[in-house]
Amino acid sequence: MAKVQPRTLSGFMELLPARQAQFDRMADTLKKTYALYGFTALDTPLIEASEVLLAKGGGETEKQIYRFMKGDTDLSLRFDLTVPLAKYVAQNYANLTFPFRRFQIGKVYRGERAQRGRFREFYQADIDIIGDGKLDISNEAEIPSIIYKAFTAMGLKRFQIRVNNRKILNGFYAMLGLTEKSGDIMRTVDKLDKIGAEKVAALLVSEEIGLSQDQADEILKFIAIKGSNAEVLSALEGYRGRHELFDLGLDELNTVTKYLSAFGVPESHFAVDLTIARGLDYYTGTVYETTMLDHPEIGSICSGGRYDNLAEYYTDKQLPGVGISIGLTRLFFVLEDQGYLNDALNTAPADVLILPMTEDLAPAIALATQLRSAGIRTQIHAEQKKFKQKIGYADKLAIPYAVFLGEDEINAGVAAVKDMKTGDQVKLSADEAIAHIKAGLAKLNEGLPILDKGE
Amino acid sequence: MAKVQPRTLSGFMELLPARQAQFDRMADTLKKTYALYGFTALDTPLIEASEVLLAKGGGETEKQIYRFMKGDTDLSLRFDLTVPLAKYVAQNYANLTFPFRRFQIGKVYRGERAQRGRFREFYQADIDIIGDGKLDISNEAEIPSIIYKAFTAMGLKRFQIRVNNRKILNGFYAMLGLTEKSGDIMRTVDKLDKIGAEKVAALLVSEEIGLSQDQADEILKFIAIKGSNAEVLSALEGYRGRHELFDLGLDELNTVTKYLSAFGVPESHFAVDLTIARGLDYYTGTVYETTMLDHPEIGSICSGGRYDNLAEYYTDKQLPGVGISIGLTRLFFVLEDQGYLNDALNTAPADVLILPMTEDLAPAIALATQLRSAGIRTQIHAEQKKFKQKIGYADKLAIPYAVFLGEDEINAGVAAVKDMKTGDQVKLSADEAIAHIKAGLAKLNEGLPILDKGE
Repeated sequence: MAKVQPRTLSGFMELLPARQAQFDRMADTLKKTYALYGFTALDTPLIEASEVLLAKGGGETEKQIYRFMKGDTDLSLRFDLTVPLAKYVAQNYANLTFPFRRFQIGKVYRGERAQRGRFREFYQADIDIIGDGKLDISNEAEIPSIIYKAFTAMGLKRFQIRVNNRKILNGFYAMLGLTEKSGDIMRTVDKLDKIGAEKVAALLVSEEIGLSQDQADEILKFIAIKGSNAEVLSALEGYRGRHELFDLGLDELNTVTKYLSAFGVPESHFAVDLTIARGLDYYTGTVYETTMLDHPEIGSICSGGRYDNLAEYYTDKQLPGVGISIGLTRLFFVLEDQGYLNDALNTAPADVLILPMTEDLAPAIALATQLRSAGIRTQIHAEQKKFKQKIGYADKLAIPYAVFLGEDEINAGVAAVKDMKTGDQVKLSADEAIAHIKAGLAKLNEGLPILDKGE
Repeated sequence: MAKVQPRTLSGFMELLPARQAQFDRMADTLKKTYALYGFTALDTPLIEASEVLLAKGGGETEKQIYRFMKGDTDLSLRFDLTVPLAKYVAQNYANLTFPFRRFQIGKVYRGERAQRGRFREFYQADIDIIGDGKLDISNEAEIPSIIYKAFTAMGLKRFQIRVNNRKILNGFYAMLGLTEKSGDIMRTVDKLDKIGAEKVAALLVSEEIGLSQDQADEILKFIAIKGSNAEVLSALEGYRGRHELFDLGLDELNTVTKYLSAFGVPESHFAVDLTIARGLDYYTGTVYETTMLDHPEIGSICSGGRYDNLAEYYTDKQLPGVGISIGLTRLFFVLEDQGYLNDALNTAPADVLILPMTEDLAPAIALATQLRSAGIRTQIHAEQKKFKQKIGYADKLAIPYAVFLGEDEINAGVAAVKDMKTGDQVKLSADEAIAHIKAGLAKLNEGLPILDKGE
């Protein structure tokens, strides 16, 4: 028979089993953390009517969308989890209770140019809190604190959540009479890390944007405000009283900073940073980006912010919210690429491999049933293979324990339990074996998915 | 602003939060059960190159496939999890260890005619064991025993796994000299439940299939063999010695039946059933279907079998396997529709809602942190709303506990913990509150996702 070459599309991540186990541990940590903060899980379709998904229309994203006809229906694959959330909340408004806290971890699709570390199918892991008409400022501190807890629970140490407020930026540009140009300015300032202050200044006074040298200087002076959070906030006080929106933004930033500490985020892990703007127009208050301190070149691994109108394309209801998104597939790629994955993690498909040494499998099955009832992941190796091959199977898969069950053991009511790492072998009753194996596994499973040698 | 009507495509399941929690509990039960049996989790792309996905080509399924161009690439959405598995195993053969045991729970796509209870996007939950060249018969008993455990762990009681062997059927038709017509015959016999024996007999002797009356009678006599498993197996012994393949199949069925008991499946939950054939040509040994005893009209809720060549379209390697698949979305729909979902299950987004009664949120946040560290899912209600509205929020979401934290409580180092169901309220220290709440939750979370009143 003629064969088709099996292959996976470029830009689509497909992992070998041990790597998949590491990915799943990270995703599980996120799920558990999000759940501990009272977020409910949602699962929305990957396909939506194009008319609904692209209600907002336009923009860079539209070109990347996987859009196609099925019969005479115009369909699109979701490109983020925010638009489906907006649709969901507008559609189910009467059946939801607000503030509505939801998390979603799911695949999204963008037909980007294929290049290393860029994915066309990738997981996003989002949390959002949606209010009905109003939403308290404290939520804007809780959201990044959840990210702090989640990353820490994964084992990541050297990261920083950078916080700013769009009202401060918009208020500041209003002071300079530059409200109409603020979009262009923010997009330019966003390049600061990449191209440096001088080139940003040159762009600002270029014909395209057209600021005066004084205005450009004021802007560069403003975004050059650095230091501890207290120092930055204090420097910002110097601008107070010149514009209402700015003052409101500064109040909000003060409150968020105060609550971030209360929510348990140490000063080392968050920074007020006036260069953070977030491209999207719909953010209206606090905005976040998260960087790995030792790998700033990677850019933000987790971003989001406060918005006033989640679902304005679908409903007249005012639905303000705050949310944050982790690009999980890209983060996993970066962590693997930079050597952050903890390969000591137990990624075996089973904790125990039982090797029956008798033709009758019944005693092996009975023991397996006992181990599984105790929560121990157990395989029986019942293939007609040589002993060496069976042990090799446990070895290759890094299964921590092998259990031998021969006539002698069965008659004595014991099993021979071998620690595959140390080679130690002991004969134990089923109950003793369970206790012995569970103690060993507890140690093995202590490890976190990320091994951050920093600090 | 003109609004777009928010809607979800027909044939796509999108659940409200409480229902989603029930669905997720079912999926989690499957994941846990599969993992306990030593299966590794896989996650393959939803999109594949059409050339790869449709290597097998033809058939009913092809018309239903979501297939489209992106740029000049011909893409298709997966329509099951078996073809992606075949691709994965062929592609990663050198990096896998056999027998390879994998589970995958993921969405698949089929553009079926939209009708009630039929889905175009739906979850399949599959397990497969793939051998390299050979695979022991005991796997053919372990696979359905895992399904028995999984369904039982979900709370389902009145179901039966029906087992047959394709070698018995093929051997039987060979005895009658009907090998070439066996496909047509099996498809006709498959209609027995729906149209009855008389109509099946009429179809068999019709011009299209063209059997003699004697042959049709032999077939109807054969598939009419009923009774306990021992009775059916004993009746089959009467055919032994007439065809090698039949004899081999009967040996296999005897072995699988014996091991099914050893693997812990009670006689009440499996039945040797000679009418089970499974449409797909690639099954070569044991085949399974699973029916709900009180709802046979629903058809099989879990099917599969033994095959000799998983990946023949991609590789020359002989990769025999055995697998089974649950159509999870359809099963969930049926369970909801038939009133099987356990609505007493704790589906709230949080276990505790803290209501801070002071302006400073710090004490509430500190308490929330303690509860979360103890594994209790906790929300803080920090909105500027009336007390009644806040309690209404806990009520509507069925959050089991509300915790009030005012000046008095803070000064006394306690919190007022209210059981929202009984209305009982007690003042407790943080540690006492944790113990109190955990004891209550343990009871609440005892329930299984399915409430099967049968038996």
